[in-house]
Amino acid sequence: MSDALTEQISAFKNLQRQLWCKRYLMSVLEFDGETVAPEKGAAARGEAMGALAEERHALTTSTDAAELVAELTDAGSAGKLDTQTAAELRVFTRDQREASAIPLEEEGAFTRLTTEANAVWLKAKHANDWASFEPYVDRIVESLKRQAGYLDSTRDPYDVWLDQYERGMDAAAYDAFFTQVRETVVPLVREIAAHGIEPVPAFARALVPADAQLAQARDLLALEGLDMAGTALSQVEHPFSDGFAPGDVRVTTHIYETDALSNAFSILHEGGHAIYEQNVDPAYAYTVLGEGTSMGIHESQSRFFENYIGRSRAFMGQLLRIMRAHASEAYAGVTEDDLYRAVNRAECGLIRMEADELTYPLHIMLRYDIERMLFAGEATAKDIPALWAKLTRDYLGLEVPDDAHGCLQDTHWSGGSFGYFPSYALGSAYGAQYLAAMRAAGIDFEGACASGDLAPVRAWLRENIWRHGRAMDAPELIERSCGGAFDASFYCDYLARKFSGLYGL
Amino acid sequence: MSDALTEQISAFKNLQRQLWCKRYLMSVLEFDGETVAPEKGAAARGEAMGALAEERHALTTSTDAAELVAELTDAGSAGKLDTQTAAELRVFTRDQREASAIPLEEEGAFTRLTTEANAVWLKAKHANDWASFEPYVDRIVESLKRQAGYLDSTRDPYDVWLDQYERGMDAAAYDAFFTQVRETVVPLVREIAAHGIEPVPAFARALVPADAQLAQARDLLALEGLDMAGTALSQVEHPFSDGFAPGDVRVTTHIYETDALSNAFSILHEGGHAIYEQNVDPAYAYTVLGEGTSMGIHESQSRFFENYIGRSRAFMGQLLRIMRAHASEAYAGVTEDDLYRAVNRAECGLIRMEADELTYPLHIMLRYDIERMLFAGEATAKDIPALWAKLTRDYLGLEVPDDAHGCLQDTHWSGGSFGYFPSYALGSAYGAQYLAAMRAAGIDFEGACASGDLAPVRAWLRENIWRHGRAMDAPELIERSCGGAFDASFYCDYLARKFSGLYGL
Repeated sequence: MSDALTEQISAFKNLQRQLWCKRYLMSVLEFDGETVAPEKGAAARGEAMGALAEERHALTTSTDAAELVAELTDAGSAGKLDTQTAAELRVFTRDQREASAIPLEEEGAFTRLTTEANAVWLKAKHANDWASFEPYVDRIVESLKRQAGYLDSTRDPYDVWLDQYERGMDAAAYDAFFTQVRETVVPLVREIAAHGIEPVPAFARALVPADAQLAQARDLLALEGLDMAGTALSQVEHPFSDGFAPGDVRVTTHIYETDALSNAFSILHEGGHAIYEQNVDPAYAYTVLGEGTSMGIHESQSRFFENYIGRSRAFMGQLLRIMRAHASEAYAGVTEDDLYRAVNRAECGLIRMEADELTYPLHIMLRYDIERMLFAGEATAKDIPALWAKLTRDYLGLEVPDDAHGCLQDTHWSGGSFGYFPSYALGSAYGAQYLAAMRAAGIDFEGACASGDLAPVRAWLRENIWRHGRAMDAPELIERSCGGAFDASFYCDYLARKFSGLYGL
Repeated sequence: MSDALTEQISAFKNLQRQLWCKRYLMSVLEFDGETVAPEKGAAARGEAMGALAEERHALTTSTDAAELVAELTDAGSAGKLDTQTAAELRVFTRDQREASAIPLEEEGAFTRLTTEANAVWLKAKHANDWASFEPYVDRIVESLKRQAGYLDSTRDPYDVWLDQYERGMDAAAYDAFFTQVRETVVPLVREIAAHGIEPVPAFARALVPADAQLAQARDLLALEGLDMAGTALSQVEHPFSDGFAPGDVRVTTHIYETDALSNAFSILHEGGHAIYEQNVDPAYAYTVLGEGTSMGIHESQSRFFENYIGRSRAFMGQLLRIMRAHASEAYAGVTEDDLYRAVNRAECGLIRMEADELTYPLHIMLRYDIERMLFAGEATAKDIPALWAKLTRDYLGLEVPDDAHGCLQDTHWSGGSFGYFPSYALGSAYGAQYLAAMRAAGIDFEGACASGDLAPVRAWLRENIWRHGRAMDAPELIERSCGGAFDASFYCDYLARKFSGLYGL
């Protein structure tokens, strides 16, 4: 290798290290803000966040960085880059192109707009006042359409945003996915409702003090396989998780003392995100490759641990053991079957965040339909409450009593995240395809869940998903790990089989 | 004002804002590391800390910054700067000069040396193995002498470092101070020991659960007068506090469930640091002036709340009320006099961190004597254990059983902080002079402590100390607030009167 190329590669690694540092600092600030920072510290944190975002943008889009990319691209074309550096270059080049595409004024105006919109939304939600928030939705969609044009003027704007959250996806692909979901899930949910759902059992509402729930949480994370010496657990209002750095992932939870199962499944979910971050190839540390690749793939990890493992019949023995270890009285006389039914109650509700495994995708589909119409110009913000009411009736069979329990329930739109929701449903769906691939590879999935030794499951996920970090996009990961493109049939079949069995249909 | 000057001032404010941001991020990282970060996250945090330290150094010492200072200094000489900008320029110029003085290689080598020394010290302390740590002390002192030469080659190296921790101080001034302390405190301590000290009363060892102690802590902080919406409270191994930003101070504590008074006084102490940071003039936010001015002045605030207020006879009613509010049984039958005697047991011990108000300065004097000899070339590290034994006998009347309870007990030397210890004792001593000045100003100090309404005390501290931030150095603050230079007589008189009274001497 020439001295010049060695130097360029070293400069490129150094640039990525600087970028990692900005991202790390932003993560720490956000975590601090959600967990412990006093209320009045928000302005200073915003100041520092803004500075870091600017520094990151400047590092990514500088002329130096552009020259470096040009030189390394030449070297890459001449076959002179090792595989990892080539992957870093591919990912960084895309980051750079996307960061440069949107004019700074447009980006600044959008940040101001969404910051304002978020504050207005929060008030509107509490006051059940859609009208005050409505104009922001139209302005945000308008700006997002313009920004999509900067990112790729040859594509439909909504497709551009769907692709931002999950590479390779577009509205046509989601249409096909949701059509299958609609055909399978809507009738299934109706049938279950007609069949009747058992009430929430008393043990699910038993008092389990915070200390005991935190101990349960640690046991569940350890069982999932997290390296606990590299994991911090904190309590917050709205749980999330984050991978900060090699050796540092964060998991958060919200404890309700009379709903210990909520904490248990929230922990299994966030632990799934965290174990993905914890198992990216260590060689990718401090580079652009060193984190999860997409929203959909990330959500597929969290939901795999939460639902495919956590809510499986086979896992109930382990779950009951851990719940009992720290709150034996609360679960006296509870059988595995009792627990299985309690954690799989498939009952339509109005709130997405509280939805069960079966009805969850219906909530996403509803949002997707509305987003699609907004971007297609078939609806504007003023139409949303009526659309929400109609789709809630169609998909969930429920009447929306007010907008706070309807179109004002989620924060996403106020933050400008259109195109994000569908990746949640996709993440749920990927899992069924992983499961089929694991079984085809000879993994005794039920045996692993029953014994609590998830090592074979982790080995498959590590090899096929986790270690690759951002070096592969979602379609390539799915294709390579599952031997074919994403296919919603696996998911629909899984749901149909599981819930038909549960409800004896 | 000329357009050019307006631009220069704006550039200067912007530079300070950037510097604030680096400091803020370092504080958040350190806090995160002490409170919640997982063990394995240390390397990544170190990486980010190093990057921030470099960025701060670069911002401070850049040619742009030097030019800005030169231009603004000219404007200042021509009387064209407002008072605040002139103060910012004065402080920044000194920061810049000091940051530029030490060659980067020397600084880098020193950071590596102290990082290594700190790890060796921790092991040595646990293994009671002075020999392994000894060579580091000599190397650190040698490097500090060289660095002192860079900072000011005209002064004695130890004077340079004493001045770094408390502007205006030098060995001559500390010699005078400690001579007075020695003459007052050593005989007093001997007399008290001869007179006999009551054993620790049972109520001081009563079990008070962590939740109750945290509630006591919050009440004490509120009584001190902290703005609780701008204060976070966390639990750590070794308590500290920090001012992050306008609207964001952090207080930490360590809870021992059978020593609730330890938590109470630790909270009063850290709260004193925090309220200082919280009350710097808001106009100084995001500038170099926006924090406490020195170690000694900071310590004078923490110790004023901990000792002058917190351990005064007049405050016992309030303290008892707050302790009882969250643990009534533990303090059943305890009188204010019982509490007063319990929190003022003046008993010589080996450990500085556990020392009471009276014997505390003796621990500092011992360290000062040794530091002075090391810098004067009258001793080297190998002499320290014997010196420690002799001085412990002279000052505290105790035999040192091993180095872990002697010269290995503190972390400071391993981190290169020579000259720091004396500022602790000075901070304790300033308080007596504040108290005299408050009384002279007509403040009913005992009345304020007894009623729990500390507003008059806070008003004096805010007006005379807090609001000035770094705009004034310690000597100027003392001179202006107390109507004269620092005078150790106030402190010695205070101790003599208080402890003679307590022990009926």
